[in-house]
Amino acid sequence: MSDKRPIGIFDSGVGGLTVAREIQKLLPGEDMVYFGDTARVPYGTKSRETITKFSVENVEFLMRKDVKLVVVACNTVSALSLDFLKRCFRVPIIGVIGPGAKAAARSTISKRVGVIGTNATIASRSYEKAIKKVDPGILVASAGCPLFVPLVEEGWLKGSVTDAVASIYLAPLKAARIDTLIMGCTHYPLLRKVIQEAMGRNVILIDSAKEVAKEAEMILSSAGALNSQSRRSRQHFFVSDEPSRFLKVAERFLKRRVTCVKSVG
Amino acid sequence: MSDKRPIGIFDSGVGGLTVAREIQKLLPGEDMVYFGDTARVPYGTKSRETITKFSVENVEFLMRKDVKLVVVACNTVSALSLDFLKRCFRVPIIGVIGPGAKAAARSTISKRVGVIGTNATIASRSYEKAIKKVDPGILVASAGCPLFVPLVEEGWLKGSVTDAVASIYLAPLKAARIDTLIMGCTHYPLLRKVIQEAMGRNVILIDSAKEVAKEAEMILSSAGALNSQSRRSRQHFFVSDEPSRFLKVAERFLKRRVTCVKSVG
Repeated sequence: MSDKRPIGIFDSGVGGLTVAREIQKLLPGEDMVYFGDTARVPYGTKSRETITKFSVENVEFLMRKDVKLVVVACNTVSALSLDFLKRCFRVPIIGVIGPGAKAAARSTISKRVGVIGTNATIASRSYEKAIKKVDPGILVASAGCPLFVPLVEEGWLKGSVTDAVASIYLAPLKAARIDTLIMGCTHYPLLRKVIQEAMGRNVILIDSAKEVAKEAEMILSSAGALNSQSRRSRQHFFVSDEPSRFLKVAERFLKRRVTCVKSVG
Repeated sequence: MSDKRPIGIFDSGVGGLTVAREIQKLLPGEDMVYFGDTARVPYGTKSRETITKFSVENVEFLMRKDVKLVVVACNTVSALSLDFLKRCFRVPIIGVIGPGAKAAARSTISKRVGVIGTNATIASRSYEKAIKKVDPGILVASAGCPLFVPLVEEGWLKGSVTDAVASIYLAPLKAARIDTLIMGCTHYPLLRKVIQEAMGRNVILIDSAKEVAKEAEMILSSAGALNSQSRRSRQHFFVSDEPSRFLKVAERFLKRRVTCVKSVG
């Protein structure tokens, strides 16, 4: 069996490209349609109702592209709106919270896990609930890091300001003596070095992007829906704002040239 | 003559409340309708087309409230979309760029003016053009300060991180030996102390909010359209996202309690 339809991925902006990249690496035969809501980014400072409304529109867009699976690459949407999306649509939909939480639960030895994310993600306690579902004995400490996304978008991936912000945000997690930290926002892996430095090198950093790629593979494979095509796979990128800025940042995220961007909305 | 219709004000979010406050101080008899597009904030990182599209929708909303004057409180919209809005709508529309530029041209003695704002505002060179129109002999130095808005929204109005960010962004303006600096974004007056410290106390800071209030008074007064009502004036606030966060920040901006917020969109 083989399902030649593309995998759909959406994010509030460019951050979800880290997820797109991991899926592409693991499933190079799959076609992909990516949607970034760059006209309305960021989601992480907004309310659940607004985030859910935007997300429904994003899934509808992907449905019109006839996708076989929707991957919610945005942590904020996964945390606040995934259950609603799953109830709404018939297509299988996966988010980044579950896979990230499971990986952290597997990784921790001291049973002390940290989570960082946008304020909306942290306030939802979604990672905490997902981790406790795997192992109620794990202690979870969390911290919202709202300045991390603007720092990444500004390109300040290192330097004294970024170090100082990281050490302020991460101090409570250091004090909680965690041994595993979930980077619960697609932008944060770009700050991996700064975060690792602030936490100390013994703390294991979990990148949900890699985990959700494995989940996508498992779902498609068990449904016999992997793409067995022999031709080169195709990636299509769509954004709601004008594409030029997306293109520039996309190359930083994907580490290769991107051409097929269309503006919608 | 008297025109009892309200003044309409819109902004991408809460920042325009600094403008609302100055108008209220100068024209306490005027009713006011404020719209903050908190579901789609910020505008300053987006393209002209998207900003213009959102702005047209915002003016249409205010038109339905039967306003006699539209004040574009957002620097980014004033810089990128004001001309288009003026061509589109019959209601008088004023922005913050012209008044701020005029005040800076009046203030400078050395004929060296600085401008700070979002990347979109700075890239548009709107302040520069407006200043040169008043006096082509004035040298204008500009700097985008994209981290200032997130710092204000995070409430980090002082401290070592904010000081460091300010000194990095403002270094080229210091080197340009300006004597007047336009704070070309409604959030920046909340960082006034930090900015003043970084620039040195001899540099005069221009807050466009105060200037646009004077322009509003002039326009209404010369059209005989000031409100001569004897009852207390009314302010109505509308936002596109859920109101609770707006309410909290609104009180920081307006320095008084705010109650009448409705969510639209």
